[in-house]
Amino acid sequence: MSPASATLPAAMTVREVGLRDGLQSIATLVPTAHKCEWIAAAVAAGLREIEVGSFVPPKLLPQLADTAEVLAYAKSIPGLLASVLVPNLRGAEQALSCEADLILVPLSASHAHSLANVRKTPEDMVLEVGRMRAARDSARSAALIEVTISTAFGCTMQGEVKASDVLRLVQTVLDAGADRVGLADTVGYANPAQVSRLFEQTLKVAGSALCCGHFHDTRGLALANVLAAMALGIHRFDASLAGIGGCPFAPAASGNVATEDLTFMLEAMGHSTGIHLQALLALRERVVGWMPNEVTHGSIWRAGVPKTLSTANL
Amino acid sequence: MSPASATLPAAMTVREVGLRDGLQSIATLVPTAHKCEWIAAAVAAGLREIEVGSFVPPKLLPQLADTAEVLAYAKSIPGLLASVLVPNLRGAEQALSCEADLILVPLSASHAHSLANVRKTPEDMVLEVGRMRAARDSARSAALIEVTISTAFGCTMQGEVKASDVLRLVQTVLDAGADRVGLADTVGYANPAQVSRLFEQTLKVAGSALCCGHFHDTRGLALANVLAAMALGIHRFDASLAGIGGCPFAPAASGNVATEDLTFMLEAMGHSTGIHLQALLALRERVVGWMPNEVTHGSIWRAGVPKTLSTANL
Repeated sequence: MSPASATLPAAMTVREVGLRDGLQSIATLVPTAHKCEWIAAAVAAGLREIEVGSFVPPKLLPQLADTAEVLAYAKSIPGLLASVLVPNLRGAEQALSCEADLILVPLSASHAHSLANVRKTPEDMVLEVGRMRAARDSARSAALIEVTISTAFGCTMQGEVKASDVLRLVQTVLDAGADRVGLADTVGYANPAQVSRLFEQTLKVAGSALCCGHFHDTRGLALANVLAAMALGIHRFDASLAGIGGCPFAPAASGNVATEDLTFMLEAMGHSTGIHLQALLALRERVVGWMPNEVTHGSIWRAGVPKTLSTANL
Repeated sequence: MSPASATLPAAMTVREVGLRDGLQSIATLVPTAHKCEWIAAAVAAGLREIEVGSFVPPKLLPQLADTAEVLAYAKSIPGLLASVLVPNLRGAEQALSCEADLILVPLSASHAHSLANVRKTPEDMVLEVGRMRAARDSARSAALIEVTISTAFGCTMQGEVKASDVLRLVQTVLDAGADRVGLADTVGYANPAQVSRLFEQTLKVAGSALCCGHFHDTRGLALANVLAAMALGIHRFDASLAGIGGCPFAPAASGNVATEDLTFMLEAMGHSTGIHLQALLALRERVVGWMPNEVTHGSIWRAGVPKTLSTANL
């Protein structure tokens, strides 16, 4: 956002979370073979980070019951950083035994959302992160532990979430042994001014350990929010192919920012994502074909890539 | 986009162009009475600038054939700045005789688009602007002449549009007597980095005469592009209720950025638009009801206003 400078635009990482955040929110059960096909094609298109599932009880999320299998497949692909989400120590132990590269722990800054989502207070989740770190260390695992502060910009249950609560949780999870943190706008409440403020404040606490922005497009502001975070040097963002995911509190509303739209914006701005946009759009079409009853999202697939985008990315 | 500063966020003007850019692009003919109802309700919701139509031959755009009548109605509302688009001197003369407050002249920076759209080269349009200025002065009218450089960020026909062409046209139309200029991404090709660069360069040529950004959401980047222009001090943006308008080159793709989404983003960021968001959403519902066969757009109407948005705007 600064005036055109002499420095080259930074490289950016787009982290695909459609196989977890996307699939957990829709009714369609995507077979394991299709998930593996999705991962293989995403890697072929240039994606290097994929959240492949979640270690939660299969009763709660049957869509992700095959996470161990999918993770094993992802681990077989050289150069792919495979992450899984875990809500508790037990999930982290599974992730460690399956040798996930990255363990993603959601920690809601909203007390109400935290209780509803993981039946723990935010403070108890901090203790759980400490136990995960101990488990990681005693397993002599190289897995990274990344904590995402969810509902960091507000909560549909609680309403306002105080920045001071977010900052305190960031500090305490880092103290408890998390390697990295990210900020998530779980319900699509964030606006770019708030993103600027909260990322700036969090950078003062976490420094380079703050390394991810997770924005839902529920109210259309996801890409503007990404832009605001980019202006502060954040260069890694979550996204979901075709924007799948939705929001349980707003039927038919958009979910995560669409991977293809985020990639398009970054590439058009001159940032290198390593992603081949046309290959990604072809994958989008395939994945959308597996879920004919789901509402999907995104813009670039419909309008097509501008003539002005460098053919290097096509 | 600068770090949270001590200054208050600037007031912002949202300029409704749905009655012109929106209606000219859809098949539905909205009756004059409905257009007047739309204008009255928009003003009641707090909008202060509305483009009510276009003085072009009714054969070309039957949707806008009642522009003189609609403009007369708009002129009867105190505090409303009523503008019309005109493609040539003849249209400007009509606008002057109908006492439009603002005459909007589209001038395409793309040679190919200019010929297709107004059958004139960009250079001939500059001469036409000079004639409009002479007509305005000899009529002793107070109407403002604002030239929008369209396809400023690229063109579906020509592809790349050079920044140097845009800057040259901005300089020459100001020399020819235009009061103001704006930059338009007519086909949804712009990205925030390009917006930053081109607005920054244009500000050096035009100074405060550069006073509008017009972004289409064809590829999902309209709000991010607004944000990039805001960072350079631009505080007036075009928008279309329910994002109507589409793009003739991309069926079902979004048109102008949705008025309600733009208003939501600005108000959520703390900028005052003077617009009552819930009243605007009620108007959106009414207008969409008039065009059951049209594809409409936007996000905030579906997901609803966050609990965290100040009730002052509700």
